[in-house]
Amino acid sequence: MLGVLAGLEVIRTLNDAGIETDAPICLVNWTNEEGSRFAPAMMASGAYAGDFTVEDILARKDAEGVSVGAALDAIGYRGAEPVGTQKLGAFVELHIEQGPILEREEKTIGVVERGQGILWYDGHITGMERHASTPMEYRQDALAALAEIVLAIELIANSHAPNAVATVGEAVIAAPSRNVVPGEIAFTMDVRSPEGAIMTALDTEISAAVAGIASKRRVEIAFDNVWRKPPTIFDASVVGAVEQATAALGYSNRRITSGAGHDACNVNAVMPTAMIFVPCKDGLSHNELEDATQTDCAAGANVLLHTTLALAGVVS
Amino acid sequence: MLGVLAGLEVIRTLNDAGIETDAPICLVNWTNEEGSRFAPAMMASGAYAGDFTVEDILARKDAEGVSVGAALDAIGYRGAEPVGTQKLGAFVELHIEQGPILEREEKTIGVVERGQGILWYDGHITGMERHASTPMEYRQDALAALAEIVLAIELIANSHAPNAVATVGEAVIAAPSRNVVPGEIAFTMDVRSPEGAIMTALDTEISAAVAGIASKRRVEIAFDNVWRKPPTIFDASVVGAVEQATAALGYSNRRITSGAGHDACNVNAVMPTAMIFVPCKDGLSHNELEDATQTDCAAGANVLLHTTLALAGVVS
Repeated sequence: MLGVLAGLEVIRTLNDAGIETDAPICLVNWTNEEGSRFAPAMMASGAYAGDFTVEDILARKDAEGVSVGAALDAIGYRGAEPVGTQKLGAFVELHIEQGPILEREEKTIGVVERGQGILWYDGHITGMERHASTPMEYRQDALAALAEIVLAIELIANSHAPNAVATVGEAVIAAPSRNVVPGEIAFTMDVRSPEGAIMTALDTEISAAVAGIASKRRVEIAFDNVWRKPPTIFDASVVGAVEQATAALGYSNRRITSGAGHDACNVNAVMPTAMIFVPCKDGLSHNELEDATQTDCAAGANVLLHTTLALAGVVS
Repeated sequence: MLGVLAGLEVIRTLNDAGIETDAPICLVNWTNEEGSRFAPAMMASGAYAGDFTVEDILARKDAEGVSVGAALDAIGYRGAEPVGTQKLGAFVELHIEQGPILEREEKTIGVVERGQGILWYDGHITGMERHASTPMEYRQDALAALAEIVLAIELIANSHAPNAVATVGEAVIAAPSRNVVPGEIAFTMDVRSPEGAIMTALDTEISAAVAGIASKRRVEIAFDNVWRKPPTIFDASVVGAVEQATAALGYSNRRITSGAGHDACNVNAVMPTAMIFVPCKDGLSHNELEDATQTDCAAGANVLLHTTLALAGVVS
C-alpha cells in the first residue's frame, strides 16, 4: 500500500488511482535499521544480502540479554517466510540526506549514485605522563601527538576533496589531570570515500602520517584498521530511473553520494538498487534538531512513486 | 635533630658532632604538602604565610567529611602553639627536581633561585555534532579546534623558551561517538613561567590564539583564567648560601627554576627562603617510577646541612 502525497491530493493506493503495473510492487520495512537496541545496524538487509546468517542475527542480544528472535516473537513480527524468499527486480530507498549539500545548493532531490566506503581505526598513543612543569623539549605528550593526527587527517581528506572525509570522534586521556602532561590516549577514527582507489590512498597516507607523528613526537602509536566497508556503486539503470522520474516531475536535483550506511547499500549487492535523498535542515541527523519540510518529503515520495512505477512498468 | 649522611659516616645530631650554632635550627614538616586527602595542597605553609586563615584550613574536609582539625586531633598532631608564633630567620627546603634537567646535564645539585608562576584556565569549545559523513568544509569540529589550540600553545611556549611551559592536561568530548564529528569539548590548561612579564605575554598570546582559532573554525570557545599564581623569587642571600655550600662541598651544580609548587614558595613571602634540588630518575615524579639515588640524596642533605649551618652561624 504505497501512500503518496501529491500536492494537497492524497492518493491512498495504486488501485484507487486505477494504476496497474507489470510487476508487483513491494513496500519493505527492514527490521532494525538504526541498531539502537541490537547490533549490528541494518541487520535485516544484511541478512537478506547474505552478509550475516539468519541464525546469527536472531541470536544477537540487547543490553538486557533479550535476543532478536525472542523480541520478534514477543511482538509477533518474526514471520513464517524464509529470509531471501522474496526476489525483487530492483530496490529504491528514500531517505533524508543527513548532510548539508542539498539544502545549501537549494536542490530538492539528490539522485544517489554511490554510498561511501568506510574505514574504521582504533588508535592508542603511549607517550609519558609528566608534571606540567616539565620543559617542552623533554615531553612525550600524547595529546599533542593526537592534535597532529587530527589536523593531518583533515589535510589528507581535503587533498582528496570532495571525495573523502575523516573524523576522530572519540579520544580519551588516561588518568587526566590539570597539571600532568597526558601520557596515554585511546582514540577512534572514521574515514570515508565513495572511491575504492581513494580509500586505499587514504589508508596509506593516514597510516604514514600517524607513523611519522609517532616518530617525530617520540611516542608509540598503535593504529589498527578494524573495519573496511567498500564503496557502494548503485545500479546505473535504477539511478537513471530515479533521475528521469525527478526530471519528469520538474524537481531541481543533483547526483549525490550517501555518506551514511543504508539498507540500500546492503541489498545493492544482490539486486539493482538506488536511493533518493531529500534535504534536511542544517544537514543535521541523529540529533533532536533533525528536520525536513513536508514539501521536500512529498517531492521525495513522488520521485519514489514514479521511479517505482517506471521500474515496475505501467500497464494501464 | 638533623640526620645527615656523609659518605658512610652517619652523624646523628649536631651535638654528637660538637657543633654549636648562633641561632637555633628548626626542622619543619609542614602538614599536608601533597593535598592528596585535603585541599588545598601545601595548606600549612599557606596558613603560616597568611594565604589562608587557620580557621579556614582547620575546617576543610576530606571526601568522607572529616575536617583537618578533627584529623589532627585524632592523631594528636594539632599542637598548642598558635600558627606563626615561630619566627624563622631563613628557610631552606630540599626536594627532588621533579624534572629531567639535572639528570640530563649530569649535575648533582640544583640551586633553586625561582619558582614558576602558574596560570590555570578552564576552556569549553562548542562546535556542532555532525555525522562523520559530513563534508569537511561544512564541519564545526570541536576536536579540530582543540588540536589547533594544543599545537598553538606549544609554539607560544617554545617562543619563550626556556622560560615557559604550557599544557592541556584534561580534554573531554561530550557524548563521543565513533561516527560523529565532536561538537563539544571541555578542557583545562596549565601555563607556567618564572618571569612575571612572560606570564603576562603568555596570557595575552594564548588568549589571542584561542580567539583566532574560534573565529577561523566557526566554533565558540569559552576560555577563562581561573587561577594566577605569580612567580616566586627566592631570597638572593639564601640562594647564595646554598650555592656557596654546594661549591664548598665540590658538587657539580647549576641554578634552576622550580616548576612545581612547594612549601618554600609559600613561606618565601614572609621570610628569606631558597631551595635545593637533587636529580630524579628520568625526571619522573608523582608516578610509581619516581626514584632518586642514595648518593644524590646524601649530597642534597649535606648541602642542606652546610647551608643551614652557614645561615645559623657556627660558634664552635
